[in-house]
Amino acid sequence: MGVVVPLEQGRTDPEASLDDLVRLVAGGMERVNTTILSRTGSDVAMIPEVANHLIASGGKRLRPILTLACADLTGYAGGDGAVKLAAAVEFMHTATLLHDDVVDESDMRRGRVAARIKWGNEASVLVGDFLLGQAFRMMVEVGSLRALDILSAAATVIAEGEVMQLTAAKNTETSEDEYLAVIRGKTAELFAAACEVGPVLAGRPEAEQAACRAYGMNLGIAFQLIDDVLDYGGTSAALGKNVGDDFREGKITLPIVLALRRATDEERVFWRRTLEREELEEGDLEQALTILRRHRTLEDTMDRARHYGDAARAALDIFADGPVKAALLQAVDFCIARAH
Amino acid sequence: MGVVVPLEQGRTDPEASLDDLVRLVAGGMERVNTTILSRTGSDVAMIPEVANHLIASGGKRLRPILTLACADLTGYAGGDGAVKLAAAVEFMHTATLLHDDVVDESDMRRGRVAARIKWGNEASVLVGDFLLGQAFRMMVEVGSLRALDILSAAATVIAEGEVMQLTAAKNTETSEDEYLAVIRGKTAELFAAACEVGPVLAGRPEAEQAACRAYGMNLGIAFQLIDDVLDYGGTSAALGKNVGDDFREGKITLPIVLALRRATDEERVFWRRTLEREELEEGDLEQALTILRRHRTLEDTMDRARHYGDAARAALDIFADGPVKAALLQAVDFCIARAH
Repeated sequence: MGVVVPLEQGRTDPEASLDDLVRLVAGGMERVNTTILSRTGSDVAMIPEVANHLIASGGKRLRPILTLACADLTGYAGGDGAVKLAAAVEFMHTATLLHDDVVDESDMRRGRVAARIKWGNEASVLVGDFLLGQAFRMMVEVGSLRALDILSAAATVIAEGEVMQLTAAKNTETSEDEYLAVIRGKTAELFAAACEVGPVLAGRPEAEQAACRAYGMNLGIAFQLIDDVLDYGGTSAALGKNVGDDFREGKITLPIVLALRRATDEERVFWRRTLEREELEEGDLEQALTILRRHRTLEDTMDRARHYGDAARAALDIFADGPVKAALLQAVDFCIARAH
Repeated sequence: MGVVVPLEQGRTDPEASLDDLVRLVAGGMERVNTTILSRTGSDVAMIPEVANHLIASGGKRLRPILTLACADLTGYAGGDGAVKLAAAVEFMHTATLLHDDVVDESDMRRGRVAARIKWGNEASVLVGDFLLGQAFRMMVEVGSLRALDILSAAATVIAEGEVMQLTAAKNTETSEDEYLAVIRGKTAELFAAACEVGPVLAGRPEAEQAACRAYGMNLGIAFQLIDDVLDYGGTSAALGKNVGDDFREGKITLPIVLALRRATDEERVFWRRTLEREELEEGDLEQALTILRRHRTLEDTMDRARHYGDAARAALDIFADGPVKAALLQAVDFCIARAH
């Protein structure tokens, strides 16, 4: 175990990893994984098949890890509650991914062929619904009405964010504020809820609930902005999807919003053709990358991500130093360092 | 107000109507409708647009009516709880319809163009998710963990039933038992849950909860079987969808299951071509109707529906006679009489 040296605000450690955090919650995550497996079970064979196609394909399980860590951070005694809520959070996330694939007409997800290609749109929709139902059943078992309130509100806000994105997609007039509203909903809200339920279970005062929520919200925004950058610069192998997916789907992400604000007339014509009308030609992705580099919008998106990363770190100020807090701080660096 | 004369078991009153039931819960339903309107509100304009396209297009709102009536039947004092749970039940139903349209690739719903045709599959999936989230928020506000348990379990069972139907669809080997398992899940479970939460809110003993659940479950099965019959014989105007939709979608419903069991070799070849391979030719629907009539499978499906109708009525035996019970008994007759 390495000594974690806190960095100054605004700087991120490019060597940061999730290792400390993963190690600290390893016992809980083993139970979360067992719960996930048992709760995807059904007499209807297609359900575990489709669910496990996506769940078994990995992903870091960052959201349930955050639930366990925030419960630990705030002194949760370690009953079943946090494990069940963590599994519920992961099910909500998986349901969203299954439904997103239908919405985006994706062919690939986490480096594997998307469930909707293998089993059809209908299976993706319905197995997503099943997982959402199971998520709520687990929350009900935990029996905290406050946690139920937080997570059911999150389900609504996530759907709102996704619908907002539908409306914003292909609209080259989308502003930075509008785009931030979209990602607060579709990505950051679940991070926020995942973190907030930790101190709720631990029975801690509202200030600590709000602090964990703020940590999750800001981390989620940073996480999504880095994803947006990676979509134009990450390597296909690491991401499990190809560079340029957002571009090909006509998704207006922050690097594009910024590039549009700085666009020449000629560039604006290019973005309208490729994103609004989705008339793609050979070499368009290269051209898009050239424009993004010219205006340094990937770097500027990274800067925004660092800003939200700082806010996430600052939110934890009210907690005493300790290994869990240090690991949560390092997780912020890790999320941002992915883009290097 | 007419005098309700109880009929012998096994007979249904062809003049039966929902009027008494509708009148008895009219005050509550007004509040349910206001709640539905306010809870489809969102700053994201597309959400109320899509939700209200379907919600405003009518439908009898049978499920929330049942929730209110079963609460009344068991002496619920009439607070906000039943109204919110009734609205939540209707939202769950609406979400299911929106997702079903994507699954079935429907063009029409309740006599109007399906939301997915007007706004795309993505809007149907996401607005369905939004309504499901809002349903859970309302349940959480009511604060009954038992009601939350019943309705979240129902969400899971509904999705399971729908996936089962995917697997059974186009499979001419589907047995009557397998088909019943499908409709218990996809239709009857929500009827059962809608009824069961009434006595739960009223704080009544388990026997009354089980009785209301049994009433809803059996009514739901009868309701779906009659729907299956109507799909081959109802009038387009009354149903809001065209006769033969199930046939054209290759859906194996009970009239078909029974016809397959009685099929000649030649008929079996016909069903395999039209339902399994969906190779439809001019005149196939007429041919299908001729075969169904030859084997009297629409009548036999009606008989099954009457059987479940009897079971629904019998479930209410434990309750003292009164206007709500009489109206609930008449609702069974109404559901069955639709097919005449």
